[in-house]
Parts: sequence; structure tokens; C-alpha cells
Amino acid sequence: MSKTVYIAGLGLIGASMALGIRRGHPDYRLLGYNRGEQSRKIALDRQMVDEVTDDFASFAPLADVIILAVPIKQTMAFLKELAQLDLKPNVLITDAGSTKQAIVDVADSYLDPTKVRFIGSHPMAGSHKSGAQAADVNLFENAYYILTPSRLTTPDTIEELGDLLKGLHVRLIQMDPSEHDRVTGQVSHFPHLLASSLMLQAGDYRERYALTQHLAAGGFRDMTRIAEAEPGMWTSILLTNQAVMLDRIEDFKERLDQVATLLKTGNEDALWTFFDQGRATRKEMEIHKRGGVDSFYDLYVNIPDEEDEILKIMELLRGTSLMNLRINEENREDIHGILQITFKTQADQLRSKEIIEAATDYQVFIDH
Amino acid sequence: MSKTVYIAGLGLIGASMALGIRRGHPDYRLLGYNRGEQSRKIALDRQMVDEVTDDFASFAPLADVIILAVPIKQTMAFLKELAQLDLKPNVLITDAGSTKQAIVDVADSYLDPTKVRFIGSHPMAGSHKSGAQAADVNLFENAYYILTPSRLTTPDTIEELGDLLKGLHVRLIQMDPSEHDRVTGQVSHFPHLLASSLMLQAGDYRERYALTQHLAAGGFRDMTRIAEAEPGMWTSILLTNQAVMLDRIEDFKERLDQVATLLKTGNEDALWTFFDQGRATRKEMEIHKRGGVDSFYDLYVNIPDEEDEILKIMELLRGTSLMNLRINEENREDIHGILQITFKTQADQLRSKEIIEAATDYQVFIDH
Repeated sequence: MSKTVYIAGLGLIGASMALGIRRGHPDYRLLGYNRGEQSRKIALDRQMVDEVTDDFASFAPLADVIILAVPIKQTMAFLKELAQLDLKPNVLITDAGSTKQAIVDVADSYLDPTKVRFIGSHPMAGSHKSGAQAADVNLFENAYYILTPSRLTTPDTIEELGDLLKGLHVRLIQMDPSEHDRVTGQVSHFPHLLASSLMLQAGDYRERYALTQHLAAGGFRDMTRIAEAEPGMWTSILLTNQAVMLDRIEDFKERLDQVATLLKTGNEDALWTFFDQGRATRKEMEIHKRGGVDSFYDLYVNIPDEEDEILKIMELLRGTSLMNLRINEENREDIHGILQITFKTQADQLRSKEIIEAATDYQVFIDH
Repeated sequence: MSKTVYIAGLGLIGASMALGIRRGHPDYRLLGYNRGEQSRKIALDRQMVDEVTDDFASFAPLADVIILAVPIKQTMAFLKELAQLDLKPNVLITDAGSTKQAIVDVADSYLDPTKVRFIGSHPMAGSHKSGAQAADVNLFENAYYILTPSRLTTPDTIEELGDLLKGLHVRLIQMDPSEHDRVTGQVSHFPHLLASSLMLQAGDYRERYALTQHLAAGGFRDMTRIAEAEPGMWTSILLTNQAVMLDRIEDFKERLDQVATLLKTGNEDALWTFFDQGRATRKEMEIHKRGGVDSFYDLYVNIPDEEDEILKIMELLRGTSLMNLRINEENREDIHGILQITFKTQADQLRSKEIIEAATDYQVFIDH
């Protein structure tokens, strides 16, 4: 049975979801809302959606599924607005916000469980690019897509949403909204808070020690990269994950105090263990390239350390769209080097592996 | 007049310095000490130095210049040992340690200013690679090389050391040892402390919230990369920069408290400003790829977004040794893409620019 899906917000996330839903369900009717004209026009011109509006309320009553892919504050405002509208019976509503408890709380408080179903969503992918122009049907490929069931989630909701999203090729996982906020608070939100704090600390230090402005290198660069993220989005995320942030701040201050004690007492062994445990923990953790910023597939080729070897591989892959190419010098033995090639799609990755293996006797790896 | 230069420590730094000194002064006699046999053998076999020893004291009396390129603790031990040896009159002694005040203090306390000259050195370059095997004559090219004059530094010392190092192509700057430790403490040492603390915090959080293990993405990855650095080196650095680290810890805790207050009071405007100032400060600061980890030269080419454009550029650069190649998608306009090519040497960078400009009508940039 064909459905009408209403996507409110045709930025990178909303427009990419439209493309993925279209891939999975070519017969579904897709409606789009966007405040700004440019993404609305692009989404319509490129047939990402069938009709567009700049009046959120106008299309809501037509939809079997409503996806709110707008900033957190707007998501909460639209949930309240939906509670006032005459929607289709049993309409399925979801969102795409980076924090979940605050959004689920608004849904629980305002929506009527006898009339609508709701489940919180967090598709964990993104890009430096934005807008419908940057939409990519493969944006979510193999990315985690977190569902946070709550009071408004009926047993059929998850199955129905899973089917709707089948063309996105995501990895669906379910979490409690508060657990979601704790975990993403630790691995995503709190690091942003740290990065910006370090950046401001260094900025102030310049006033006293001018060379601070000039001597930062690779470690500092990597530690502060996310300090260039968009302030409005991160302000909203922090404010809707306040308790977790406050808890992580207190915990972190205690950790800093512990290191300070080790320094004051000159406890060399314990400091060594501090650094060593950090190193060991990082090696244990699953840290994705996907989600957040990057979205790609790597291949590692053991090539001889000769100048035109890269060109030779590139000629083999003529016609394949690749994003990056890197010599991992640190892993080089005397004779062989590891060439890392990054593709946009898994299909290109696997096909390239076959091509290189057929044409050379080099070892080719998917995992590093 | 030919000189005898004694380099104690033939790891990446010492052996690369040997190559650079040799390039600037082919007639100088280079002696090397290394405890481990492998780097000693490589340095001798590849004629990085003329003679090697595993007995530090044995070559010291032969030297006009002594460079201590060993870990910080060993540097301090060797300075004490040098005070007991019968050295050439007016010998010039320097080091390569990542912290300076503690080393300068040992030199000041133990060495006799009527017999020797001393100046602290910090060549700000490095690599993931280690040992004489990884030595690179271009490792220090355009990198900052910090000199920290002190009581044992006579007016001629700086000029003489500058001449000795002319083949390294470094950017020499002078700083007070304590200012050096403050500035590098802020932009290098303290970030390591933060990264390892964040890593341990996330590691502990896994015990309560298992999905912490699985949901980290790009921001967390970049923030914690340096948590995989070698624990022994960073323990020594922190312990010899104790006061600065304690000061930065207290300052950082105050910053965390300030953010906590903004969160508790829901001060949206001030949180926005916090993130915005972090972003603005990062854009202002000079952040090097060189120094720390990387050491390379970039070229940016505005290529059309077509599949075999990269191959076309690679064919033009046939025979040139390149390290990386990257499509910067986030900077892409509708039609053009920015291709970033990374070279090992400035000569390759400049020559490639000329080649691409001669063969195509693409814009080629040195700066991004």
C-alpha cells in the first residue's frame, strides 16, 4: 500500500532521507516542507520530493508518516503544533534530533496516544556540507540509526518505521532516550565542550604569551577541529542535554584533580599508567569514520615504495569515483607501503579490490 | 674550519639532525652515540655519522659541539656526566628536549661557564616513525626550532649554532625557557593530558553504558588521537613541566565551571558566544601541519568534478613522489572540486604547480 510521507526540513539530513526512502519505496508519495526557498526548490527540481510547501501545517493532515528533520528547538515547536492539527488517524511521527530525552518529553506531554504514534530517531551521519544540494542517497549507508521507543511507541511502530527506512541501509538500534543522551553526551557533546574550552583557553593565553598564537601543531589541530562547528546547533544540543553535561563536567574535573595530584607528588609510575590506559582504551573502542563528519569506504593496498606505483593503481581504477588516497608512511616496512584509497560507496570499494587483485599480486585489505 | 660534532641519540631526531648538519657542512666530522645497536648500525652504514659508540663518555672529549638528542631524563643525566668529563675548551652543548626549564636548570647547576657553553634547543618536528631508519634530511624544513638562551649562553653561541644547523632549513626563534614551557604546555602538553583524560572517562562510562563502546565518531576520534602517543615520553614531559600543567588544569576547571553555570541557568546567548568565540579563535590561530606529527607540502588544484580528473593530474606528475591526495568535498562548488595533493618536499610542490599550470587551465594554489 502506498503511503504519503511528509519530511519537514529539506536540509542535508531530510533531503538525504527523502532519497533513501524513495530508493526503498519508489511508489510512495513524498511531501516536503522547508522554510528557506533554495533547498525547497532543489528538492522539488531534483524530484527528491513530489510537492513542497513553506507552510508546515498545510501538508501535515495528508501524511501517513511525518519526519521532523529540523533543528531541535523547531522540532519541539512542530510537535506542539502537530498536537493542534487534525492529522490522519494513527499517523507515525518521528524526528532526527541529536538529543532525544527533551524531544520525547515534549511528544509525551503534547501528543495524544489514541490518535498518533511517536518514536524518537537519531540518524548518526552528517557531513561538512549542508542543504538539499548536498543530499546523498548513501549518506546513511551502514551508519547507526538510533530509535528511542517511549510511551507513544506502539509495538508496530518500530517495524513500520524500519520498513520505511529500508532504502537508507542503516543499522537500526534501540535505546532508551536517556541512555542515548548519556552515551552521545560522552562521545560527542562533551568533546565539543572540551574542544571549545581548550580553544578559548589558548586564545586567552595568547594575550600573555604571544607565541601561543604561532606554535600549535598537529595534536592541537586535531583536538580543536570540532571547535569550528556551528555554534547554534551545539548550543541547542548542550541545553537539551544539560544534566548529562553537568555530570560529565564534574567527573572530568575530578579526573583533572587526580592528574594534578600525580603531578604534585611526582608519581611517575601512575602518570605512565594514566597515559598507557588512555592508549589501551582507545585501541579497544570502536571509533567510526562514519557518522559525524565522514562517510566513506577504505581499501588498503600493500604497494612497493616506488614513485609510479600509485599511478599504476589509479590507472587500474580508471572510471571509479574516489575521494582520498593516502600513503600511510608510519606503517611502512622497508620495502612495502600501505596505500589507503577511500571510496564513496561500498560497491566501488569491493569492485576495486577485485580489480587490483586480478591485475597485481599486491595484498589488498578492507580492514587496516 | 672543520668541526667535530657529537650527536648523542641516533633516533629520528638525532639522525635527521645528522643528515641536515652534513648537508650544510659536508666537511664536518660527525660522531654518534646510541644505546641500541640497530640505529647505531643504520647511522653508520648509511654514513649519517662517521663513527659510532655505545659509550657516551668516550667521544665527548673529541667534540667541538655536543648535541644531546635523547629522552629528557637521559639528557639531564648526560649533562651531569659531561660536567665530570675533560671536554674541549669552550665546547658548545645543546639538547633537543620537549621541555626546557628543567634541562636548562640542570645545565646551569652542573656545567662550568668558564669551560663550556650551553643553549637549550627544541626542534619542533616529529613523525609517527622512529629510529635512525626513519631519518629524513627534510624533517625540519621550515619547522620552528626554538632556542632558549640562559646563563651558559655566550653571545657567539647562537650565531655558531645557527651556522651549524643551516642545512636543516629551520626557522630559528629565541624564547625564555620558562616561556617556552608555558606556550608548548598550552598548545601541546595540556592537550595530551585532556585527550587521555577524555579517553579514560569514556572507557569508564562503557562499564555503565555499554553502547559508549560503539557510538564514537569523527569528533571523538580526532579529539583522542594523541591519547595513543608513547606514555613514557609524555610522562617525562608532564613531570618536567609540572607547574605549567597545574596552572592549566586549574584554569581549565574554572572554564568548565563557567560552562556549567551557563548550562544551569540556560543562558543560551552566552553558550552561543562560547562556541562562536572558540570558532573565531581557531580561525585566527596559526596551526601547523608541520611539527608534532606531519611534515609536508600541500598544493590545491581546482579540478572539475569528473571521475578521471584525478588520474589526469597524476599522469602529469608521473615520477613525482607524493604522500597524499584528497578531494575536499566540503569546499566543492557545483562544478569545481578542490584536489589537495601533498608532497614530501617543497621542491616537488613548486615543480608540480608549474607542471599543472602549464598543462591545464585549472587554478593551482599553495595556500588553501
